[in-house]
Amino acid sequence: MSVTASEQTTSRGASELPPISHPPKGADATREKLLQAANELLFERSGAEPSVSQICERAGVQVAMVSYCFGGKNQLLEALVERINIGIRGELERLAAREMAPEEMLRHHVAAMVRNFVRFPYVSQLNERLRAGNQPAQRIAPPLTDFYRELLGAGARDGAFREVDPELFFFSLVGMCEYLFSARSLLTEGGGAVDDDLIERFTEHTIDLVLHGIRGNMEERP
Amino acid sequence: MSVTASEQTTSRGASELPPISHPPKGADATREKLLQAANELLFERSGAEPSVSQICERAGVQVAMVSYCFGGKNQLLEALVERINIGIRGELERLAAREMAPEEMLRHHVAAMVRNFVRFPYVSQLNERLRAGNQPAQRIAPPLTDFYRELLGAGARDGAFREVDPELFFFSLVGMCEYLFSARSLLTEGGGAVDDDLIERFTEHTIDLVLHGIRGNMEERP
Repeated sequence: MSVTASEQTTSRGASELPPISHPPKGADATREKLLQAANELLFERSGAEPSVSQICERAGVQVAMVSYCFGGKNQLLEALVERINIGIRGELERLAAREMAPEEMLRHHVAAMVRNFVRFPYVSQLNERLRAGNQPAQRIAPPLTDFYRELLGAGARDGAFREVDPELFFFSLVGMCEYLFSARSLLTEGGGAVDDDLIERFTEHTIDLVLHGIRGNMEERP
Repeated sequence: MSVTASEQTTSRGASELPPISHPPKGADATREKLLQAANELLFERSGAEPSVSQICERAGVQVAMVSYCFGGKNQLLEALVERINIGIRGELERLAAREMAPEEMLRHHVAAMVRNFVRFPYVSQLNERLRAGNQPAQRIAPPLTDFYRELLGAGARDGAFREVDPELFFFSLVGMCEYLFSARSLLTEGGGAVDDDLIERFTEHTIDLVLHGIRGNMEERP
């Protein structure tokens, strides 16, 4: 797997959020600072939620700005999940638009998903908590499931893949990519350190497991 | 997959904890009530942590009993995770002792793991939270990884499986079984209801994905 220089830094500290389309000013700039601060703290604290005052201290803004900019902490966290999801959906659309065999496309997609969990290991659990609290958290499942429906269908038509349920595949693939990050304290090697070498081995391992897992009988290799 | 009557009830409400070896009396009986109450509340609340008073109200015991029996809420939750893990380790030992081809053993193991997440969908995240808070939570990863090392090694020796890293396989398999339960609000069908039909389909889907995923080149089927 090729890992670019900017991606390598993500295994050592929190990464930047996906950029917005225009340079933020005024209240938008404050929103940006708060979102980035929440991202950094959630990353550093393995998903344990920071308080409003911790977020504001990190962002270097007054505590009242969370209410002013978002309405409250849950809405700030929702906006963070949505920002991350917008980045993921954009990545998915660009990948889906490429001319590529289904197997190759899935290989790229798995590598991208692992990379996103390296950057935002807390996002699944945060999303689930926001939904459990009846917050209208943004959903990433439908675009992913639609992507799998297309991809698995195309692969099944040309005999590369066997028939696989796209929604169940969504849970399998996201779970398989996410768990190393959400449960990294269970790593016996290195006391839970997710370093670049482990990420690379895990990406290759996951691609192999998934591609073998759905490969059609027609395409089995000697 | 055959599902026994007692297992079927687990998709509708919290299940009993694995039994202890002797009928509890006195303080042990109170401990049992508290553990069972915490299990029920965590199940019903999708893993959101109940307060000490909620646990005691459900158990029908005085609030002071949490300190008296466990030392505090985190220790109660640790004891709950440990109780569940003892059950899982026992199941694993009984399975490992059976005479069975590696592929067949893995099929049984995956079905058991899904069943355990149906019963205790909150256990992974609770364990992770307890560890993040520096509680010496009990670990289930080493016995599972050892089991996979044996099983994958035996399967590779007879050509049934390809070479697969047992620790990475641990994260893949647990993640793949767990995510449907930890993120069930993402289910588009049925608004997050995990019913018996879904559990059965998911179990078969996961067994197929895993067994195809690690099958050796020697054993590919026409």
